[in-house]
Amino acid sequence: MQQDLQNFQKRLGLRIRELRKRRGWSQEEFAHICGLDRSYMGSVERGERNVTLASLRAIAKALNVKLSAMFKGLD
Amino acid sequence: MQQDLQNFQKRLGLRIRELRKRRGWSQEEFAHICGLDRSYMGSVERGERNVTLASLRAIAKALNVKLSAMFKGLD
Repeated sequence: MQQDLQNFQKRLGLRIRELRKRRGWSQEEFAHICGLDRSYMGSVERGERNVTLASLRAIAKALNVKLSAMFKGLD
Repeated sequence: MQQDLQNFQKRLGLRIRELRKRRGWSQEEFAHICGLDRSYMGSVERGERNVTLASLRAIAKALNVKLSAMFKGLD
């Protein structure tokens, strides 16, 4: 279960990184747009965080995608 | 933003409750299946919690739905 969650976090982090890069933003710019700390954002993209709904929403809003779209195909 | 998050939490809580009831489970049974505390589950269904990815995953797995499906139409 723990391993499963970590794998999922990694897939989600890669998805977020991909969407962020597609918009041409550095991690620092993106963190600023999301209102999140830069080092925190780095750990989210590396799949090291059990992110909360609030952070997920902030990230999805910054990327202009729906949460359902952000999770699509990940599980 | 805070109000927006609270509204989203409420919509998500109602969605979870609806899916749980459709399966004929009491809140107590459902909490047990998810491996979460019963009173915590109650507060999730009332939209009072900024749930983590781990709890969202546990809930979606118990309901046998994908996270993308659980969020569909909520935002």
